[in-house]
Amino acid sequence: MKIYGMQESTCTQKVLTVLAEKEHEAELVEVNVLMGEDKTLPEHLARHPFGEIPVLEDDGFLLYESRAIIRYLDQRLPGRSLTPRDLREWALMEQWISSEQSYFSGPVYDVIRSGPVYNIVWNSPGAVYFPPPPDEPMLQKARQDVGKAFDVMERTLSSQPYLAGATFSLADVTHMPYISYLIASGGGDFVSSRPSVAAWWERVSSRPSWRKVGKVLGQA
Amino acid sequence: MKIYGMQESTCTQKVLTVLAEKEHEAELVEVNVLMGEDKTLPEHLARHPFGEIPVLEDDGFLLYESRAIIRYLDQRLPGRSLTPRDLREWALMEQWISSEQSYFSGPVYDVIRSGPVYNIVWNSPGAVYFPPPPDEPMLQKARQDVGKAFDVMERTLSSQPYLAGATFSLADVTHMPYISYLIASGGGDFVSSRPSVAAWWERVSSRPSWRKVGKVLGQA
Repeated sequence: MKIYGMQESTCTQKVLTVLAEKEHEAELVEVNVLMGEDKTLPEHLARHPFGEIPVLEDDGFLLYESRAIIRYLDQRLPGRSLTPRDLREWALMEQWISSEQSYFSGPVYDVIRSGPVYNIVWNSPGAVYFPPPPDEPMLQKARQDVGKAFDVMERTLSSQPYLAGATFSLADVTHMPYISYLIASGGGDFVSSRPSVAAWWERVSSRPSWRKVGKVLGQA
Repeated sequence: MKIYGMQESTCTQKVLTVLAEKEHEAELVEVNVLMGEDKTLPEHLARHPFGEIPVLEDDGFLLYESRAIIRYLDQRLPGRSLTPRDLREWALMEQWISSEQSYFSGPVYDVIRSGPVYNIVWNSPGAVYFPPPPDEPMLQKARQDVGKAFDVMERTLSSQPYLAGATFSLADVTHMPYISYLIASGGGDFVSSRPSVAAWWERVSSRPSWRKVGKVLGQA
């Protein structure tokens, strides 16, 4: 099993976290997005027609989109399940995975782009493919949207330990890399000012899987 | 079972299409997004903290995000399954559902906003919540991205009848409302110029479910 990606990429980190949770080793084949390799290397574009990372290769089977890859890995590999068996809890996991994509990672990424970690990306040779840091009105709007998304999380986590319910699931994994970079980018207040989110973050970020995968590029 | 949404909304149409495929009747409770009701009605914001539609209510259980709702309905209701049993085909369905959200509906929506159907939205009382039509450079970029996404679909559909493989699945459903509005907005060439996409569109849009749900607001 191979993962074409980059340790520092949020979407690659989701996949590596799930692999670590399942205690499965896979080869990480680096596609350096800071050098724009995802957008320019013909062999990568043959694997991923939209020129993004990561891509999973499993015995000749190619799959892209991190949120599809993590669902696949959780079913494909033995070990602890990250998908609730209860139908409603499973549906809520799906709601949170989709919410992250719709309302969370976009504005969080805007806030990250205003902080110090993003300078590494922005000053890299491949930076032509990365958007510039946001201007002040855009940043204000992003901070407002991020705050709202964390408020929604806080309400949920005040009555249950994980986003989908009683157990750690793929929904938690999809949020973790973004929050880690947000904290490293000076946005730690978003987490620490919300007690249930802060307790949840302590819980999920202290897992052995995240201790193995996170903490690169200045991530907390 | 209730759906809080609006017949004309793409995300509501995905849910209604799945309900029609499962031959299940649910009550559609209109939340008029043209009037901004999704963003302003307190009772709707209690159901959907991000102020969007649709929301499913099933015997006291509330669920938002159309892509989570359709997965839930497909498992919850009897009848024809829209989820492949084969692990890899299921993973590809998930890849396409995520691809639609990542690469497809955004640029398609930009192109739709340049066409006649969007004027109904843009001139509505709630239009304060809708973005303006794109300027020319943005529209050119969107048309390029839409063309690329359809090229990827064409390659897949040239060797199999549906996006995930041999059978009609949730992945096809997630693309249909956007394509329908794209055609109604003068973008029919994107479909008709690609023979496999055109044949697929004829196949999926002639299904009884879509004949029941589509064709509103000038959709083809």
